[in-house]
Amino acid sequence: MFKKILIANRGEIALRILRTCKEMGISTVAVYSTADAESLHVRFADEAVCIGPPPSNLSYLKISNIIAAAEITNADAIHPGYGFLSENAKFSKICEEHDIKFIGASPDMIAKMGDKATAKATMRAAGVPCVPGSEGVMKDFKECQKLAKEIGFPVMLKATAGGGGKGMRAVWKEENLEDAWDSARQEAGAAFGNDGMYMEKLIEEPRHIEIQIVGDSTGKACHLSERDCSVQRRHQKLTEETPSPFMTDSLRKKMGEAAVKAAEYIKYEGAGTVEFLVDKHRNFYFMEMNTRIQVEHPITEQVIDYDLIREQILVAAGVPISGKNYFPQLHSIECRINAEDPFNGFRPSPGKITNLHAPGGHGVRIDTHVYSGYIIPPNYDSMIAKLITTAQTREEAINKMKRALDEFVIEGIKTTIPFHRQLMDHPDYIEGNYTTKFMEDFKMKPLEKED
Amino acid sequence: MFKKILIANRGEIALRILRTCKEMGISTVAVYSTADAESLHVRFADEAVCIGPPPSNLSYLKISNIIAAAEITNADAIHPGYGFLSENAKFSKICEEHDIKFIGASPDMIAKMGDKATAKATMRAAGVPCVPGSEGVMKDFKECQKLAKEIGFPVMLKATAGGGGKGMRAVWKEENLEDAWDSARQEAGAAFGNDGMYMEKLIEEPRHIEIQIVGDSTGKACHLSERDCSVQRRHQKLTEETPSPFMTDSLRKKMGEAAVKAAEYIKYEGAGTVEFLVDKHRNFYFMEMNTRIQVEHPITEQVIDYDLIREQILVAAGVPISGKNYFPQLHSIECRINAEDPFNGFRPSPGKITNLHAPGGHGVRIDTHVYSGYIIPPNYDSMIAKLITTAQTREEAINKMKRALDEFVIEGIKTTIPFHRQLMDHPDYIEGNYTTKFMEDFKMKPLEKED
Repeated sequence: MFKKILIANRGEIALRILRTCKEMGISTVAVYSTADAESLHVRFADEAVCIGPPPSNLSYLKISNIIAAAEITNADAIHPGYGFLSENAKFSKICEEHDIKFIGASPDMIAKMGDKATAKATMRAAGVPCVPGSEGVMKDFKECQKLAKEIGFPVMLKATAGGGGKGMRAVWKEENLEDAWDSARQEAGAAFGNDGMYMEKLIEEPRHIEIQIVGDSTGKACHLSERDCSVQRRHQKLTEETPSPFMTDSLRKKMGEAAVKAAEYIKYEGAGTVEFLVDKHRNFYFMEMNTRIQVEHPITEQVIDYDLIREQILVAAGVPISGKNYFPQLHSIECRINAEDPFNGFRPSPGKITNLHAPGGHGVRIDTHVYSGYIIPPNYDSMIAKLITTAQTREEAINKMKRALDEFVIEGIKTTIPFHRQLMDHPDYIEGNYTTKFMEDFKMKPLEKED
Repeated sequence: MFKKILIANRGEIALRILRTCKEMGISTVAVYSTADAESLHVRFADEAVCIGPPPSNLSYLKISNIIAAAEITNADAIHPGYGFLSENAKFSKICEEHDIKFIGASPDMIAKMGDKATAKATMRAAGVPCVPGSEGVMKDFKECQKLAKEIGFPVMLKATAGGGGKGMRAVWKEENLEDAWDSARQEAGAAFGNDGMYMEKLIEEPRHIEIQIVGDSTGKACHLSERDCSVQRRHQKLTEETPSPFMTDSLRKKMGEAAVKAAEYIKYEGAGTVEFLVDKHRNFYFMEMNTRIQVEHPITEQVIDYDLIREQILVAAGVPISGKNYFPQLHSIECRINAEDPFNGFRPSPGKITNLHAPGGHGVRIDTHVYSGYIIPPNYDSMIAKLITTAQTREEAINKMKRALDEFVIEGIKTTIPFHRQLMDHPDYIEGNYTTKFMEDFKMKPLEKED
């Protein structure tokens, strides 16, 4: 087993990983930017190394500094968390070259799954259903036009290097195709230095349902059922739940089998997520594979009663998995608490938390790196806490989430707590009747004036 | 189902009950003493009624004020929590007379189980093993002397109305019997207004292992396995765990069956606990039955994945139980965080909490009514929080507890956090090798000086 793990991340996920390392008796090294010196992941780690100032390309994305920190502290493994360098093939390779175990996917695997067009071609070869579309990057607009007619409008143009909604266009009519092609390429080129575009049929009333998988070095994989992440705003997930209210036993079996088939086909090692779009007829299509831990992994942990970070570390150390597929007996919901003002277009609200009181009790879990007096730096993602409730039924989990949100006090900044509170009262959410379009029509109700 | 429940308690258990009521859509009424006006159970309840000043006999024990609060607010049920009026037959009866459902045992049941001698006679009749001893209260010293010779020294003298170690004496030799008899009777008379004494054989190397049971109005009962509460200081539990490290499958089966037999014999309704002493040969003896929710109920909830307060409310409303006995698959530990100085004989340490940061993450639950800025009144029990960790194995639960205790920050007062942290490193605790005598030999190690 590893003696010392460097955690190449910040915020709640750095703390999350650190906790499991401590529980496993593994020493920890935190890295941090000058903006994060007061963060809990720094305070609770056995060692901490400053790796530069913000923005991230000078610190959390600066491979040389992170490798140097690992070498100085004699870390024998690096856990990258999510975001930052977690799906960076070059970083995974450099770790390998320095004889530091990267707790994540191999460079080849990241490269294969990180390029969306290659990922899709691989999945098609594995027999996993994919959204009809181009086979890889389209040569030119002519090919784009021909293909769009073949698969039929509406279609989606997507940047092959894309993420977070950049370089992405929905096109409903042929006459708008050329404008979309031009502007998406321009945006992708500017954002990613790569303007390669691919096309997919646009799925109407789509649900984003992902399957958690774990594979080991023997080539064996298993699935831990699904997470429904359809409540998204501009492709950013806001809340997730397992099981999906849209799921049926037979669909779960089919999607689980497809995800395991995908993982075993590519000989996937570690924890990963196969993301699918599910249409209103319960057809499902491979969307992408994330070769890392996800933000929303706790809801799966709550219903399987074990620790996915621990599982990642064990698999990285060569321990074989049990291989048992899991079918949920409980219901778990996560609300992402962001430092954003939901009454003002979810505008970021960094600053000092003057008072924090977290809810507790039966079925409530909180993952957060913030505390009373913490100053949220403006440089990073606005997520400051994850509130997770778990119960025997979906109705109970929703009711538990309501009471936990009501108890949650965060003063000094604006947060998305009021959004989640209203979401939990929304008739469509309560009925589980939501798609990835849900937030387009969602309006915050004004706050009632207090006496 | 009840529309409004009055919670006749304070502190964490009042908040605990309030949370479940909220989750069930039941309105809540908090009652509070003037010393508790700033408590969270007051803040989070739908209505709150001040019932008098401390000490408790002027407020939390003042039946007329509590009944008046229930009548004024139109509460249709009262949950008494633990302690205070939770096992007061008169209170249960007065609730009945006022047509307010008492969420607990009937007056007869409380009377029967609350008098220790009657409880033991009842259990003996039900065929549940009891510690050899007197059949009820002893008439005089002559009877005491005769009986002690019959069952053999060492013996215990116990006040029939007793609790918390008062009016209790261990006697190892005949020559000390008369002194013990006199002083125990005097103490019991002063503390409880009742100097009735009974006798039991003293169990050497005893473990305190209790079985959680639930019974319903159809006369059916089930058990939810055990809690080991042997780590006690002066008969006050400090930490509890389930399963017991001393338990075997066959002993669990036997003790579970005995507890269910006991509950069904007395037609017990609601949640209750049958406490046993288990000797080093794994013989078990009925000690007492608690006809209420216990402080340590969360560890059972964590391993059964459901809510015992909810179960109490459902049973009180006449809903039948499933009747399934439960055998634990996970391991859960509770540490009681008290405002006491473990380096100074566990002396109470009331006062203002100047800073509070609670641990979180996977497998961590906290039940507490305190917050940053809260002033702990000197009038009540010193418990300010319960920290509960749950994992797949005992070793993992202990490791999780260590890291959670390391993260727990409570400033301004002394707490038992350092005690629990040292306990989790104690070789005998780690090996599960402890009895109710464990704390007699336990010594705190001095704190390491910080640089």
